[in-house]
Amino acid sequence: MGILAVGSVALDSVKTPFGEEEEVLGGSATFFSIAASYFTDVSVVAVVGEDFPLQHIAFLQKLGIDTAGLETKSGRTFRWKGEYGTDMNTARTLDTQLNVFADFSPNLLSEQKKREFLFLGNIDPDLQRRVMEQMERPKLIACDTMNYWIVNKPDSLRETLSRIDVVLINDAETRQLARESNLIRAAKTILDWGPKTLVIKRGEYGALMIDRKSVFGTPAYPLEHVVDPTGAGDSFAGGFVGYLAAAKSCDPPELRKAVVFGSVMASFNVSEFGPRRLAELTFSEIEARYREFRALTDFGDL
Amino acid sequence: MGILAVGSVALDSVKTPFGEEEEVLGGSATFFSIAASYFTDVSVVAVVGEDFPLQHIAFLQKLGIDTAGLETKSGRTFRWKGEYGTDMNTARTLDTQLNVFADFSPNLLSEQKKREFLFLGNIDPDLQRRVMEQMERPKLIACDTMNYWIVNKPDSLRETLSRIDVVLINDAETRQLARESNLIRAAKTILDWGPKTLVIKRGEYGALMIDRKSVFGTPAYPLEHVVDPTGAGDSFAGGFVGYLAAAKSCDPPELRKAVVFGSVMASFNVSEFGPRRLAELTFSEIEARYREFRALTDFGDL
Repeated sequence: MGILAVGSVALDSVKTPFGEEEEVLGGSATFFSIAASYFTDVSVVAVVGEDFPLQHIAFLQKLGIDTAGLETKSGRTFRWKGEYGTDMNTARTLDTQLNVFADFSPNLLSEQKKREFLFLGNIDPDLQRRVMEQMERPKLIACDTMNYWIVNKPDSLRETLSRIDVVLINDAETRQLARESNLIRAAKTILDWGPKTLVIKRGEYGALMIDRKSVFGTPAYPLEHVVDPTGAGDSFAGGFVGYLAAAKSCDPPELRKAVVFGSVMASFNVSEFGPRRLAELTFSEIEARYREFRALTDFGDL
Repeated sequence: MGILAVGSVALDSVKTPFGEEEEVLGGSATFFSIAASYFTDVSVVAVVGEDFPLQHIAFLQKLGIDTAGLETKSGRTFRWKGEYGTDMNTARTLDTQLNVFADFSPNLLSEQKKREFLFLGNIDPDLQRRVMEQMERPKLIACDTMNYWIVNKPDSLRETLSRIDVVLINDAETRQLARESNLIRAAKTILDWGPKTLVIKRGEYGALMIDRKSVFGTPAYPLEHVVDPTGAGDSFAGGFVGYLAAAKSCDPPELRKAVVFGSVMASFNVSEFGPRRLAELTFSEIEARYREFRALTDFGDL
């Protein structure tokens, strides 16, 4: 049972109109694992350098996250530096230092191969497949990707997507990947490549989930203070996969609830720098915000 | 009973990635009235020139719209020419010829003053107030505006908004009007000026309705073919006010349903040039799409 999360653990330096923080804990596997940890057991598979602060590992462990797969290699930790303008919807990358992450090639432990839910963060699609192939019999595989792989490894990415259950990407990436400006047609193009379900994250506009039979949409939680959007997509994925793993079901009604839990986790994450707010939640806060989503979107029958 | 709609009736020349049409029937009062006509009686107050094709007047009348307030003046009809790029979210105005619309200053007939629902399309805020002041005892006044008035007549616009029940504007206008990049804070700023409710139209991202107590959000109907977004906002307003007038209530649950009916009407309108598709609907198509919105947004309780 539980989730295996494979991705980056990084040190982020982020500037937004509301402040600036240097070398805070970041990375796709970090945000994902913290968000998912409220719902089920999570094991993280990632690599950090010798300079990675031990307090961050202790911090993840304290949240119940299994860090046995967090390898420390000689060299420096992956670093990302970015900036958000007033619209807060897209980050401008100022600097990326892959460091030890450049040679990341995870070999799963036998315990890890048995996990029923696998999340593949935004890493090289070759690597994503290499991880998938090591898994014994996962119930659900979800992945993220980004414009870098869409541009530089389109064939490998398409091969990966053909074997995925749920692809979680943002709307610009959906259009770019399918080379189609209409989002719904773009989603259908991608579904034709093989994935069962596409979850399109639209930042402050909410999320859409599309499969061959139906579309589900939800607005984002209306926030008056968005401090740092970094990790929103991975927090969303953590809430989404975390809920499904806890529900032990990927049926359509559970997938819809999972999208809402994803939106809930993203909404908490963006209200502070790094995963600070995300890491200090109680499950009743999460449930209360889920209920707020019901109140936000509810309208009467004809 | 019924609605009085005051705004423009125009001839639009529109180019989109899917085609180009010259001098099709357009204008805020046109799209609004056609959309609202499915729900209740609508009287339109607008001005056209001597060159306005009589067939357009006959077309509106055939839809049951009262055109007694559609004045014909010597001169040419208001013309707008615009173009949409692939994203289809914002029009680029290529040409605006106000013509007879430049001196538009409606004097309402005594029948018109008794209408219980008033929609003020995107016209000079001075004019919007002049119309409001002629009304006897309207149950609900809704209005639209645009960046031109936000920039050129901010004080007059604010004065108008202070007396309005429901302001329907798009998200960029909300931010511009409030001089605030966060949409929720921007909306609250505008609510502080006096209007009871703000309905923020977000194009392909749906709509948000905000009042002092709550927020309601809905995604847009997922469309694979958006042919011409012109008039989407006014069609939305027509569905919104039309439903409320038919329901004879502006209670919170009815306002939420009204937002959905607004979204329904906008979704039909954008699938053809001009008001062509909007004008050929049946009420069962409208109800069917309302039910599709329920299916699109429905998710389970905790």
